[in-house]
Amino acid sequence: MASAYDTDLDRNPANFQPLTPLTFLERAASVFPERTAIIHGTLRRSYAEFYARSRRLASALARHGVSKNDTVAAMLPNTPAMLECHYGVPMCGAVLNTLNTRLDAAIIAFSLDHGEAKVLIADREFSRIVKEALSLCKSKPLVIDYDDPVYDGPGESLGSFEYEAFLAGGDPGYAWTMPADEWDAIALNYTSGTTGDPKGVVYHHRGASLLATSNVVTCGMGRHPVYLWTLPMFHCNGWCFPWSISILAGTHVCLRQVRAKAMYEALAEHGVTHLCGAPIVMSTLLNAAPEEKRAFGQKVSFFTAAAPPPEAVLAAMQEAGFEVTHLYGLTEIYGPAVVNEWNRDWDALPAAEQAALKARQGVRYPALEGLDVLDPETLEPVPADGVTLGEVMMRGNVVMKGYLKNPKATQAAFAGGWFHSGDLGVRYPDGYIQLKDRSKDIIISGGENISSIEVEDALYKHPQVQAAAVVARPDAKWGETPCAFVELKPGARVSEDEIIAWCRTLLASFKCPRTVVFAEVPKTSTGKIQKFRLREMARAL
Amino acid sequence: MASAYDTDLDRNPANFQPLTPLTFLERAASVFPERTAIIHGTLRRSYAEFYARSRRLASALARHGVSKNDTVAAMLPNTPAMLECHYGVPMCGAVLNTLNTRLDAAIIAFSLDHGEAKVLIADREFSRIVKEALSLCKSKPLVIDYDDPVYDGPGESLGSFEYEAFLAGGDPGYAWTMPADEWDAIALNYTSGTTGDPKGVVYHHRGASLLATSNVVTCGMGRHPVYLWTLPMFHCNGWCFPWSISILAGTHVCLRQVRAKAMYEALAEHGVTHLCGAPIVMSTLLNAAPEEKRAFGQKVSFFTAAAPPPEAVLAAMQEAGFEVTHLYGLTEIYGPAVVNEWNRDWDALPAAEQAALKARQGVRYPALEGLDVLDPETLEPVPADGVTLGEVMMRGNVVMKGYLKNPKATQAAFAGGWFHSGDLGVRYPDGYIQLKDRSKDIIISGGENISSIEVEDALYKHPQVQAAAVVARPDAKWGETPCAFVELKPGARVSEDEIIAWCRTLLASFKCPRTVVFAEVPKTSTGKIQKFRLREMARAL
Repeated sequence: MASAYDTDLDRNPANFQPLTPLTFLERAASVFPERTAIIHGTLRRSYAEFYARSRRLASALARHGVSKNDTVAAMLPNTPAMLECHYGVPMCGAVLNTLNTRLDAAIIAFSLDHGEAKVLIADREFSRIVKEALSLCKSKPLVIDYDDPVYDGPGESLGSFEYEAFLAGGDPGYAWTMPADEWDAIALNYTSGTTGDPKGVVYHHRGASLLATSNVVTCGMGRHPVYLWTLPMFHCNGWCFPWSISILAGTHVCLRQVRAKAMYEALAEHGVTHLCGAPIVMSTLLNAAPEEKRAFGQKVSFFTAAAPPPEAVLAAMQEAGFEVTHLYGLTEIYGPAVVNEWNRDWDALPAAEQAALKARQGVRYPALEGLDVLDPETLEPVPADGVTLGEVMMRGNVVMKGYLKNPKATQAAFAGGWFHSGDLGVRYPDGYIQLKDRSKDIIISGGENISSIEVEDALYKHPQVQAAAVVARPDAKWGETPCAFVELKPGARVSEDEIIAWCRTLLASFKCPRTVVFAEVPKTSTGKIQKFRLREMARAL
Repeated sequence: MASAYDTDLDRNPANFQPLTPLTFLERAASVFPERTAIIHGTLRRSYAEFYARSRRLASALARHGVSKNDTVAAMLPNTPAMLECHYGVPMCGAVLNTLNTRLDAAIIAFSLDHGEAKVLIADREFSRIVKEALSLCKSKPLVIDYDDPVYDGPGESLGSFEYEAFLAGGDPGYAWTMPADEWDAIALNYTSGTTGDPKGVVYHHRGASLLATSNVVTCGMGRHPVYLWTLPMFHCNGWCFPWSISILAGTHVCLRQVRAKAMYEALAEHGVTHLCGAPIVMSTLLNAAPEEKRAFGQKVSFFTAAAPPPEAVLAAMQEAGFEVTHLYGLTEIYGPAVVNEWNRDWDALPAAEQAALKARQGVRYPALEGLDVLDPETLEPVPADGVTLGEVMMRGNVVMKGYLKNPKATQAAFAGGWFHSGDLGVRYPDGYIQLKDRSKDIIISGGENISSIEVEDALYKHPQVQAAAVVARPDAKWGETPCAFVELKPGARVSEDEIIAWCRTLLASFKCPRTVVFAEVPKTSTGKIQKFRLREMARAL
């Protein structure tokens, strides 16, 4: 017999609504209509305007036939239009696919085709790449040019509409609808494919809502934070911060490029309280010329991921007025869902010990139900000894819906009821995890993932190359850079510069090797390249 | 054809877990095992201990046959045992029914019977009422005595176990399970019935998790808050704060009774940062004798509900170092889900205008999807003019599952897809709502709801009473007190004291009239008592 607790107590519209981050903006616009939502150059937009423009965008898209589960791609820097896309696109039921503006035309074309983009909103700055991508791809999206007044560089108009004109055709009072189901897709993010094509990671409204809220909790954000956009929004939807900030009616400070002068101006003039970014952002701040630096009075929270912050950087950041928190995540978990929770007792330790503790990736966000280091074969937890290597795995509501049109990869990623991150790590006796190596052969340079395999493919295409292997080389500025080990064919003579120039014809420039070592590539008896040996060699260079 | 976004992208254990507040404690104990979770008199408990004891409780309950959807009732003040119940009871799948320790035996007996409590955990202080309730009720719960070392007053042991002995029989490593469904019940809270019997409000894991998290966001709680338990946990599970505090690994400071000296000690010695309570708690703090007061350095956030904070109290609280936020809620919405969001621009207004703005109930929590003032007939929103009266209604994930074993009341409460609060209010042009009257004839005295109808019933039972009506009379200390208007039968002579003494034989003492006015009760032409006239008269007394 059913329990009384399960009888006549069903879900209904009064007591059940799909979780979604879209209601955060509606609430902010209703409660704080006059507060500044967006700062971009000299432009200021209130929450009432931000909401009205997002609804205009949703309405205009709907009028152009965009509906539920259609993909709208965006090739945009951190601009007001990009923020509007995070609300306007899902408000008409569509799915936002932000494109990494640093990628080359072939990968952009692949994404547009694979995601079946019906619309592409593209900043004029990227018109060269976009034009090439459109010529390469099969799909013919409606192209909308974003001509940002803050940008005065080169670039041409490619589309049928300019963004402002497109918005003008939309209704600011558009009656957007809640998602039918909180499991409905809200965003599509392509990972850098390590082997084969990039994979399209699908986010749903439930996960976006929960991670956005968890950011507020984890980052200790009080009301009305001022958030500086140093992290690209095309990375995991800016770790969901476009949605987090609305919960608190905070202010977004947009930034087209991560430049020291602009960052210090924002810190000094707009009272920035929070920012995120790869270690390169910290280096840029610290290594700024004296005339670029500005004094600021507030305590600023800096959230970094991609590589552990080195001791010297931590000390310098603290002295410069920043409190640094180390996060860890992947595209598949909505950005960061692991945090190096700082224990106040550790403040008393020597700086080197503190840095060692802070270098660990940490523990789960409250919104991530499970995080562990497991034996990838048995799925048994490894001993929490800080030594035994296993694969970092997650489970919970802020793990992706899966890979688009790729059931095989989705099943493999979720085998055994855990998301397999592909990262290798250890667990310490206190439960904190630390990454030790990446099983996916990823190099993270300036916050961007580079597949070593993709670079190796380019090297192998060179007619004089016999064998090649690419690993990460630690770099003070970029965190890591690709380091290539190349065996030439007998009698061949090629220079380092020639190899790099060759790669540039095939790869986006940030992916090209910074260092080329001509040497025999060490292999195991079965012929497998010993990457750990190469990493040791790269570190010693 | 199904969209690619809905194909092969189903829920699975890796990407979907039921929302529940139980994981918050598991995380706090894992990440901050040594941090102080609970302070109670001289007792200190770490998060590791709090978690282990909660698991012991779950395990011991399971060993005594308690399983999914069984009710475990608790008649406890704000003690460590009450906190453990909030985790230990649902960790074995059971439902926690906290009992209002101020109620009389008949209502306690009704709750035990209606909720079919299998276990009752009761503090020795309440043994007289509990003994009487057990003699009145049909159900025969397993009774566990809680003999709190901090309590040295009268009371006897009634049960089969003492709480500590019961826990000793449980396993601190008990493998508790996640709820099978986030819609599963976690708690049962009886409302004060205004007409007829109390109604059993059922909460689910999803709502408890979301409101607990939303408390953190709304109350701007940073890491490791120190929370003073001035709000009874038997009210809406302490507004879900027993769960909120674990998210941030904060410290609970228990308090058996709201006394000024103990509160100031906690503020000064434990660095309390947050507390909640009815206006009576503020009065108690402000009116404390000089020798009871203690200086404290930290800024303290005080969250109040039940009645709008008066201007003089707000000013005095601010001077005393408290920042007061006005919340509003009901049992049916997990406690508070409406907040008087303070607009910083209002800080510049004269104190009287600020108080008027702060007297409004406000806007929805981020976790409450809908809040409006609707015409109860048409469900159309009333004009946002600050004048037109309508019924305050809510919808969203922090609205109850429904009333236990009462489908008729559940359906009525959710008619038209909105939860009907029964409170009458207006909406201002800025969207803030304000209560104007209560359609349910509730008097809120010292944070407790009193049904005027229940008091009237008692009055009508007096042999000399011809007609009676009870309304709220504003009271500086209690917020409101019951004021009775009584028409005696011809020739009858009864004094005010006799009427009050009569009521005491039938009602819990806090429900008895504080004022009795002998006068003709004004009625409409159709014989309906004109309560608004009586309220005016009560205010003028």
